[in-house]
Amino acid sequence: MGQYTKSAVKSYLCAMELLDGKLASKAIIDSLTLKVAQSKTEGKKIPHLAAVLVGNNGASETYVGAKVKTCAEIGFKSTLIRLEDDVTENRLLSVITDLNNDPDVDGILVQLPLPKHISDNNVINAIHPSKDVDGFHPVNVGKMVQGLPAFVSATPHGIMLLLEHYKIDTRGKHAIVIGRSNIVGRPMSILLSANTQPGNCTVTICHSHTHNLRELCLQGDIIVAALGRPEFVDASMVKPGAIIIDVGITRVPDTTKKSGFSLKGDVKFNEVAPHSSFITPVPGGVGPMTIAALMKNTFTACQERNDN
Amino acid sequence: MGQYTKSAVKSYLCAMELLDGKLASKAIIDSLTLKVAQSKTEGKKIPHLAAVLVGNNGASETYVGAKVKTCAEIGFKSTLIRLEDDVTENRLLSVITDLNNDPDVDGILVQLPLPKHISDNNVINAIHPSKDVDGFHPVNVGKMVQGLPAFVSATPHGIMLLLEHYKIDTRGKHAIVIGRSNIVGRPMSILLSANTQPGNCTVTICHSHTHNLRELCLQGDIIVAALGRPEFVDASMVKPGAIIIDVGITRVPDTTKKSGFSLKGDVKFNEVAPHSSFITPVPGGVGPMTIAALMKNTFTACQERNDN
Repeated sequence: MGQYTKSAVKSYLCAMELLDGKLASKAIIDSLTLKVAQSKTEGKKIPHLAAVLVGNNGASETYVGAKVKTCAEIGFKSTLIRLEDDVTENRLLSVITDLNNDPDVDGILVQLPLPKHISDNNVINAIHPSKDVDGFHPVNVGKMVQGLPAFVSATPHGIMLLLEHYKIDTRGKHAIVIGRSNIVGRPMSILLSANTQPGNCTVTICHSHTHNLRELCLQGDIIVAALGRPEFVDASMVKPGAIIIDVGITRVPDTTKKSGFSLKGDVKFNEVAPHSSFITPVPGGVGPMTIAALMKNTFTACQERNDN
Repeated sequence: MGQYTKSAVKSYLCAMELLDGKLASKAIIDSLTLKVAQSKTEGKKIPHLAAVLVGNNGASETYVGAKVKTCAEIGFKSTLIRLEDDVTENRLLSVITDLNNDPDVDGILVQLPLPKHISDNNVINAIHPSKDVDGFHPVNVGKMVQGLPAFVSATPHGIMLLLEHYKIDTRGKHAIVIGRSNIVGRPMSILLSANTQPGNCTVTICHSHTHNLRELCLQGDIIVAALGRPEFVDASMVKPGAIIIDVGITRVPDTTKKSGFSLKGDVKFNEVAPHSSFITPVPGGVGPMTIAALMKNTFTACQERNDN
């Protein structure tokens, strides 16, 4: 919508700021580290995260490893429970019951995806909502929708923390959310349109059945790209001065890299960045925020369990 | 968006169809009546709805009365529990516990609003999710968001049933939802954008912080007006051929009526109807569908409790 003069574009070219997830997550992690140190001196309980990893999926190993490492950095206690990939659903459920009943455990996460013979829903529903720091249990999702205190899942929570860190006033802005997954797009559409700050956006949620995605994106003051298609959002879809949140992270074959791949977001960064006012890089944008959000949830779970 | 010729408007003037909630709800209620008669002959359990009414609010009396009457029409069992408006929260909670534990009761509804000394949330959370036919419990809200089987609250569920009854293909249409209440706007935005039929809409959720509401509404293939401001949506906000769902129902003083008031929707019906392809009247549109949806939920609750 609307026409932008060359000089308007130029002024944005100068003003673009990186939404640096490494920096923002470090601020959160530093603050948690201080709080845990204080808890220790006061003889209070130290937060304890229990992670369950089924099988040997490479990406899952990496994610869980990063979470356990961050726990150690902050001073949280953590327990990693490894199960073979032929573990029965019943055995996994009984592990969760034990963790639910363990008074020392504050947060439980089961790394997804699970092997096909196990129902994700059965496992998620088995975690006690007060320890569901991944925010996947229907009770936490429902409370989030209703604007009640709840654990919000790590990626959308991390994005909200990033907007907060950079003091971005989202009120009245039109946010275009591309993707309606339970893990990112759907909760982002709910959080951004809630009566909160950040929040109070007009939100349009788009997906595979959306006809005029380019037109809609051009209306966006904020674009959240969470469809999982590398470099899908290009400059022709972005209004000058828009705020770009890139949730995508896909391994794309790259012979110039030692690893054989490079990581691509859902946004053509080099092309879109000059048009935007704020943009998250990939990697180093949303990714680090998800771990920070998980840690924040674990700290909150510990506090709430001690207060009650 | 776009320009419409006079002849295009004229063709819509001819094609406008009423989304008749009385007719559609009657079809649902007739079908439930048949099913209950069949259950009786087969010796199966008859659905039983328990309604709790606190105090003597006139509108609440009317709503609960209509629900109890519809139960009788269909052949459901119903129980109306009346409590004084100075009842304690604990007493109300213990009534709910009794209903949760009563194997004959399939559905429980507590008519809102409650007196100020009672927390709506505490009461709603006390109803067992399997008997929460109003669909207000966080577990049911969360499951709805996640696309899992759940009780969806009566108004949004009723609107979806109305779209279904009129076989409206919503896929890929752009729906503008005005209002973000937990009871209507929010769940409508979720249901219309879900991967279902009806559903698969691109959805824009608007509220008090939305700047360019008129412009956005003009993009809407579907407009759901749920802001509670009588006659807010006028013809200048509506694209020719749009589908209009009017959720508002406000008593407006009217000296020409014996009752002293008339009921107004959120849409200027006379002005908007000629521009629309489908439109709900007020009264007789969404209203009757909410009771039908509640009855459908109660029937489902009974079935699920018997199957388990």
